[in-house]
Amino acid sequence: MPYRAPVSEFRFVLDQVVGMDQVAATELFAEATPETVEAILSEAGKLCETVLAPLNRAGDLTPAKLENGVVRTSPGFAEGYRAITEGGWVGMAASPEHGGMGLPMSLTTAVNEMIGSACLSLQLNPLMTQGQIEALEHHASDAIKELYIPKLISGEWCGTMNLTEAGAGSDVGALRTKAERNGDGTYAVTGQKIFITWGDNDFAGNICHLVLARLPDGAPGTRGISLFMVPKFIPDESGNPGKRNSLGVVSLEHKLGLHGSPTAVMQYDGATGWLIGEEHKGMAAMFTMMNNARLGVGMQGVAIAEAAFQHALTYATDRKQGKTPLGATAIVDHADVRRMLGQMKAETFAARAIALACAVAIDMGRATGSADWQARAALLTPIAKAYGTDMGNEVAYLGVQVHGGMGFIEETGAAQFSRDARVTSIYEGTNGIQAMDLVGRKMMDGGAAAYRLLQEIEDHASEARATLPDLAGDVWAAAEALREATEWLVAQEANDRNAGAVPYLRAFARVLGGHYHLKAALADASRQPLAAFAIKRLMPEHSALIAQMREGAAGLYALTPEALAS
Amino acid sequence: MPYRAPVSEFRFVLDQVVGMDQVAATELFAEATPETVEAILSEAGKLCETVLAPLNRAGDLTPAKLENGVVRTSPGFAEGYRAITEGGWVGMAASPEHGGMGLPMSLTTAVNEMIGSACLSLQLNPLMTQGQIEALEHHASDAIKELYIPKLISGEWCGTMNLTEAGAGSDVGALRTKAERNGDGTYAVTGQKIFITWGDNDFAGNICHLVLARLPDGAPGTRGISLFMVPKFIPDESGNPGKRNSLGVVSLEHKLGLHGSPTAVMQYDGATGWLIGEEHKGMAAMFTMMNNARLGVGMQGVAIAEAAFQHALTYATDRKQGKTPLGATAIVDHADVRRMLGQMKAETFAARAIALACAVAIDMGRATGSADWQARAALLTPIAKAYGTDMGNEVAYLGVQVHGGMGFIEETGAAQFSRDARVTSIYEGTNGIQAMDLVGRKMMDGGAAAYRLLQEIEDHASEARATLPDLAGDVWAAAEALREATEWLVAQEANDRNAGAVPYLRAFARVLGGHYHLKAALADASRQPLAAFAIKRLMPEHSALIAQMREGAAGLYALTPEALAS
Repeated sequence: MPYRAPVSEFRFVLDQVVGMDQVAATELFAEATPETVEAILSEAGKLCETVLAPLNRAGDLTPAKLENGVVRTSPGFAEGYRAITEGGWVGMAASPEHGGMGLPMSLTTAVNEMIGSACLSLQLNPLMTQGQIEALEHHASDAIKELYIPKLISGEWCGTMNLTEAGAGSDVGALRTKAERNGDGTYAVTGQKIFITWGDNDFAGNICHLVLARLPDGAPGTRGISLFMVPKFIPDESGNPGKRNSLGVVSLEHKLGLHGSPTAVMQYDGATGWLIGEEHKGMAAMFTMMNNARLGVGMQGVAIAEAAFQHALTYATDRKQGKTPLGATAIVDHADVRRMLGQMKAETFAARAIALACAVAIDMGRATGSADWQARAALLTPIAKAYGTDMGNEVAYLGVQVHGGMGFIEETGAAQFSRDARVTSIYEGTNGIQAMDLVGRKMMDGGAAAYRLLQEIEDHASEARATLPDLAGDVWAAAEALREATEWLVAQEANDRNAGAVPYLRAFARVLGGHYHLKAALADASRQPLAAFAIKRLMPEHSALIAQMREGAAGLYALTPEALAS
Repeated sequence: MPYRAPVSEFRFVLDQVVGMDQVAATELFAEATPETVEAILSEAGKLCETVLAPLNRAGDLTPAKLENGVVRTSPGFAEGYRAITEGGWVGMAASPEHGGMGLPMSLTTAVNEMIGSACLSLQLNPLMTQGQIEALEHHASDAIKELYIPKLISGEWCGTMNLTEAGAGSDVGALRTKAERNGDGTYAVTGQKIFITWGDNDFAGNICHLVLARLPDGAPGTRGISLFMVPKFIPDESGNPGKRNSLGVVSLEHKLGLHGSPTAVMQYDGATGWLIGEEHKGMAAMFTMMNNARLGVGMQGVAIAEAAFQHALTYATDRKQGKTPLGATAIVDHADVRRMLGQMKAETFAARAIALACAVAIDMGRATGSADWQARAALLTPIAKAYGTDMGNEVAYLGVQVHGGMGFIEETGAAQFSRDARVTSIYEGTNGIQAMDLVGRKMMDGGAAAYRLLQEIEDHASEARATLPDLAGDVWAAAEALREATEWLVAQEANDRNAGAVPYLRAFARVLGGHYHLKAALADASRQPLAAFAIKRLMPEHSALIAQMREGAAGLYALTPEALAS
């Protein structure tokens, strides 16, 4: 079932829903005119449709494997990677100073979605590199920048991020990897890291590992952590890959999905590394990379949702079974199948709009330096990540369901979307962690950024009342309910917030989804049925979620581990 | 992570929540005293913990395979099957007339849950045979009964059900398999069937296929279908397996999960069959088998939920990460982890109670002949199937989430529960079909059976107000909302009902869940925290679901395939 790049959908959402015109009006992104956007989306879309999508199943069937210490990638992945690099897509968002395209996140996020829809396990590779480029741009010395960034942008070299250890997952500060000063400005890094995405491959000239480690005088916890560039091959004087560094892949994981993406256990034995940023301040640099990656992973969820939706719609349109209420025989005409497809499409639209709105806020924050835009980006990032990936999973689940028994058979591909999507709710910070970020760090302004956004939603709904009174009234009321919920939330103790974090985040996404669907319906009347589906059938869930949020932590702790085990 | 059979939980639910005492008070099931129940559950539980659970991962890693036309089962499955048969568990519910134990469904359903928790892919084998035994008991000739039933009960032979064809899935009436009269009382069956669970194996002396086919003079659609017993080996004069019948396994499917259960494409080439029931009335017999199987599959969902919950709780109790609000380090003490575990436990309890309440109604219908009990069983069957399997999937999903990154790694086993659970929402009638059965066939009484049940729920809540006013008040109000929703529903056209079928079924389950949790909390105060979780945090969803139900079909059809594809 071929993937079709939703280029016109991106144009519509960017132009009519999330206000990309503001981005193009800034000096920094003046080149992102509608014509350029169209050209870039079309070119990337063609690559995804013709070159990358055909690799997806091969990656699943023939996982990357470790042979004598070398990772052998899935059939066609090397060619697919080359096609991505030749198109310049790795360095889309990177500064032109080092050869990047300097495109806004709103556009690169859209391109990343398409690459992810086509072949998510391969897309992880440039996604990691993109995050590394951004971290280096912000925190590396000029020498490191000049050596590494052009090669990462060209795709000659790849980047990885090494945070997790067996005893240090969500609690990064517990890491045990050590770094020691070599006395010549370099460092010796020793330790084991797990869950390293694309920890190695057989198509890039060098693999550049950004590794978190602690210096001997580093304080305990996250405040004593430093960040190092530890390349697989130590660059020689002319900057070419030279001597092999003392690091290697110990093993690859057997995963539920993303078989084409090698997830490595990495061992560093006094490997030579270069400091990125200041000593003991590695977490700041890592956060740059992680924030980028969080939106990127949210968009991976949208990517799977779009691909799974297209796949299921094609099946439902082709599959004949029984007589439907419309008198024809394709199962798409059964009310419950239509319901599932409507939900898949409505959720995909909402998740995409939230992610692109987050990207627009990032762009505006960068281009204007406005604290309000930066706060908007910070607020939307955990929602884009958690809701996008939740929807990736739910839409893929519904995609299997639409296929009926065939959905359980691997050959149809519906199940692969479901397996590949599963980890997106977990990596780059579990969705529980995202929700706690939303109700904690992102509410340290007392809810100001949230209230500003809710006010915009209410103002828009008030305007929309003239045209779509029913839908607009529902969105207004839901935003008002969310405002009250936010007022309740910010007044609570930390752990009561945490207890309600996941339902609050979902309620927020439900209201945002209603808002963006309303905008879409106003801009294009043909979108009203989908907007009505989202607002009348899906958005009402927000009140149950808010009720759940208000229950607080005490009731959770009343369920003791002993009571749970009994 | 070893499985622990929840014997005392079954005792509690059967005795205190779903009223099994009524079953034991009937003449038919007088032997099902509390002592017998305890003894049976303990013995079955021991088998599951020690013999069957250890097979689960082997079945996943080493799928059944087809070699030269012969199915080779997963390592240890033959021994596991023998242990099940030697315990007499295949014939638990079968009539003692042919060697069965004659136990009530309420008890056999509990035993089936434990076998399913331990090794779902193996459990499917006796589950199919149990359904076949019931179909034969009701519809077969005496000669067939005497020949087949004892061997099926002893486990010497196995049974399968053959409904689905490539062009006839949910629409069984479209089948193309043919039967012709041989003139000697036997029939020649020709055609291809797909998705045949345990279509063959290497441990039973014979495989007895119940096959739906159409006689030359059979009317089109379901009314012209007949049912045949088509054994792999034709019994000789002394009833032993004789000549090989002209049927065979064409291929086995590559599935998302349940790798240990061979799912076959079966080919029949003029295979010798014996009529079951009357000519052209095969669907009636098949429905007997399917209704039994629907509750059985619902309980498979509960089985996976229980296993996934135990697995996740153990992980969360063992896994140290960061400092929790309680000052310790096991992740079970984080509010959001506690929330996930609470949801898993609350949903598992509710799904189990619904399934066992359905089983009690089946038993009471059989034992007393009461039309009200039979209507209760008919009403609860689609809810038990759909909600049980939805929860199997949702709880397994949460189980992966609790594991964090380790959940995506196959070695931990969390992902297998998720993969194995997936098809339970699809087979034996998709959950969409179940919901349409609920709002269609099961409401042909104008909602009478539903209103009777809701009245009981309201009466119980009224009584409970004295002790647990807050929880009881919520349950009463939710039941009342569901009554109004039911009144709305039964007044609608068929396709408006179908459009709201899935949300209505879920809303019904939410209210039933609240009711059974309330009963549990009244019977045992230590269960109040879990009941509060279910009633205050989960049950409120019913109103959003009812709102969705009321939207009807028109809005769904406004989403045209063209609009969906654009």
